[in-house]
Amino acid sequence: MVEIIGELLPPARVMLTPGPSNVDPRVYRALAAPIVGHLDPWFIQTMSEVQTLLRGVFQTQNRITYPISASGSGGIEAAVMNLLEEGDECIVCSNGLFSERMAVIADRSFAKVTRVNGPMGRTVDPEDVRRAGKGRKIKFIGLTHGETSTGVLQHLENYRQVADELGALLVVDAVATLGGVPLDVDRDRIDICFSGSQKALSAPPGMSPITVNKRVEDAIHARKKPVQSWYFDLTPAMDYWGKERTYHHTPPISLIYALREAARIALEEGLEARWERHLQNQQALIAGLEAMGMKLFVENPADRLPTVTGVNIPAGVEDAKVRQQLLDEFNIEIAGGIGQTKGKIWRVGLMGYSSQKTNVLLFLAALEKVLLDQNFRVPAGAGVAAAIRSYQQSAQPASAGARN
Amino acid sequence: MVEIIGELLPPARVMLTPGPSNVDPRVYRALAAPIVGHLDPWFIQTMSEVQTLLRGVFQTQNRITYPISASGSGGIEAAVMNLLEEGDECIVCSNGLFSERMAVIADRSFAKVTRVNGPMGRTVDPEDVRRAGKGRKIKFIGLTHGETSTGVLQHLENYRQVADELGALLVVDAVATLGGVPLDVDRDRIDICFSGSQKALSAPPGMSPITVNKRVEDAIHARKKPVQSWYFDLTPAMDYWGKERTYHHTPPISLIYALREAARIALEEGLEARWERHLQNQQALIAGLEAMGMKLFVENPADRLPTVTGVNIPAGVEDAKVRQQLLDEFNIEIAGGIGQTKGKIWRVGLMGYSSQKTNVLLFLAALEKVLLDQNFRVPAGAGVAAAIRSYQQSAQPASAGARN
Repeated sequence: MVEIIGELLPPARVMLTPGPSNVDPRVYRALAAPIVGHLDPWFIQTMSEVQTLLRGVFQTQNRITYPISASGSGGIEAAVMNLLEEGDECIVCSNGLFSERMAVIADRSFAKVTRVNGPMGRTVDPEDVRRAGKGRKIKFIGLTHGETSTGVLQHLENYRQVADELGALLVVDAVATLGGVPLDVDRDRIDICFSGSQKALSAPPGMSPITVNKRVEDAIHARKKPVQSWYFDLTPAMDYWGKERTYHHTPPISLIYALREAARIALEEGLEARWERHLQNQQALIAGLEAMGMKLFVENPADRLPTVTGVNIPAGVEDAKVRQQLLDEFNIEIAGGIGQTKGKIWRVGLMGYSSQKTNVLLFLAALEKVLLDQNFRVPAGAGVAAAIRSYQQSAQPASAGARN
Repeated sequence: MVEIIGELLPPARVMLTPGPSNVDPRVYRALAAPIVGHLDPWFIQTMSEVQTLLRGVFQTQNRITYPISASGSGGIEAAVMNLLEEGDECIVCSNGLFSERMAVIADRSFAKVTRVNGPMGRTVDPEDVRRAGKGRKIKFIGLTHGETSTGVLQHLENYRQVADELGALLVVDAVATLGGVPLDVDRDRIDICFSGSQKALSAPPGMSPITVNKRVEDAIHARKKPVQSWYFDLTPAMDYWGKERTYHHTPPISLIYALREAARIALEEGLEARWERHLQNQQALIAGLEAMGMKLFVENPADRLPTVTGVNIPAGVEDAKVRQQLLDEFNIEIAGGIGQTKGKIWRVGLMGYSSQKTNVLLFLAALEKVLLDQNFRVPAGAGVAAAIRSYQQSAQPASAGARN
């Protein structure tokens, strides 16, 4: 058995997927640093640093801000299950696989879950939420800031207003946006916000940073029954990450090291510069794709998620073949559709360390080659040329903070 | 903020705790290998390799064998919650914090949970389980192979017999034993077995290898309602790790790399050689401690867990001071007691890569120095001398497979 399973030799991919994104060499170095115990005095101090850094990234003063020991979907489960118990009602805005996932997870509680749907590729209308919640006691409104399955950015502005009217908490899934798209937890008065480590923060997958405010702490303390998941119960986890540092479970030390370095890098670059970089690289990508005759899945430019771009697969082009050739010939991974978009779109991620000029130009050039090989005609060089023009029109260099 | 949070510089500890244990440099190298996507064809193949290696470590042919994306406590939750639903009954053998944790987690289901208690530092009597289950329909009997909070090894032999009589499934928590203590899932007919990556396998923390047999698959498929945790629901996770490779959640790619290398190392050494190494190093540790006048918490030698040794803290010695000095002066971490053993015992882990002659001799020498500094008299050099004698009496070198 050992004989046939040899040395681990992964290919060096250019990760242009909706996560995981490429990881900065500094983060790999942190990842492989010596493991210490989860109650080591040095680690206790490191935990505080990670919390400080995450507060910076979330833009919050919330005491309870830490990485959950699970992927982003674990963040959904923690957010939903710590709030809901029998007799509660919640509203989930659903316009794609990942926003729907919040509803699917909430369905496993004993609360009543109301979905307010938006059409695929469009935002959910806060007016619909207001109507759905009218006259009812709603524990929380859940929405997904960036819907990764389609590339839709959900605008947060009016939801806080609706939540206030309904007396509801506001739960925001920022898995695809934190560190890549403007988000300010305290200013936007988001009650629970969580993300994933492997997206615009460009740490390895496996952690879900979360922040909850005092209203949520109070709501959890007021529960009648314990949270139905022990692992995702925030109360004992808060004790470990709070000043008590009481043992709950052994966290993934190495991933915490990596997340610390990734958050440091994000704050060194500056959040505004980082958001601008994501936007400019996506603008160049879009200019290139459109010049090649491609159409975007999300029609309204204002609704486009800067980190993930949904591209309609042109008629006559084989989805899987294109992605396979990009992988085999250029080591570039993009994603296909997922859920309702499967077979209809490609999803191109430009997240964190992957959001670089070099990647945009390389991808457009590689895509041109692959489409030609698949007998789909594209105007020669048009994609790259359009992207270059887009960069020339940008006010500032789009890769400044990415250190290359 | 960034200015005050500098480069990550962890101390290089000798990890003699009940986990995390020290990590082989080969595993660090795997950990920092380039991240690929969770649906990358190369990764799909790597997942199969990881499953093959884990089957080797668990000694099973079970189809459903894979690492859960969570720490060992997540393994408990997955095992318990996938089986239990309203109307079910289960029996949990509880003789310490971690075996009790299985009951605490089961309490969050809607099933009836019966505890069969064993005294601290002793095993649970299967006869008591037989009596407790008599005439009742028991879904599963849960027991903890190695109780990390005390250092007790629970003998599995008679439990299968009792479970058969009761028509119950057998769930074994092997967090503290897999890779360090004899365990054969198929031969012992264990229905669900799970572990933690950071113990005797010496991978970084953050994964919980699990294996479930056909009877468990059938039990899960026969459920009336979905599992109450979405994240720990084995059915969709099985699809991702099964031949379909259907996306469920993004797993911690880097940790899977590391676990693959750690499992390879374990099988290269050979499970029997590895078990023998753990036993011989513990025997030398015990000989040394006893020669220094220390008493073990677990009185019956047959009940001592080879990976974690509970040592009574001698009267007049300050628990915290000793551990702090070991850390400050020698970079050695041992653990204090936990739960009911807090303040009463030290827990010395010799797990995986940490289970080495060099560590045993160093620890005994360091402990002698620290105890003398704390005004506790120990016979000069007696600990180290007794350990050396113990090694001389061993049939074979105890560090062979550890490559040093």
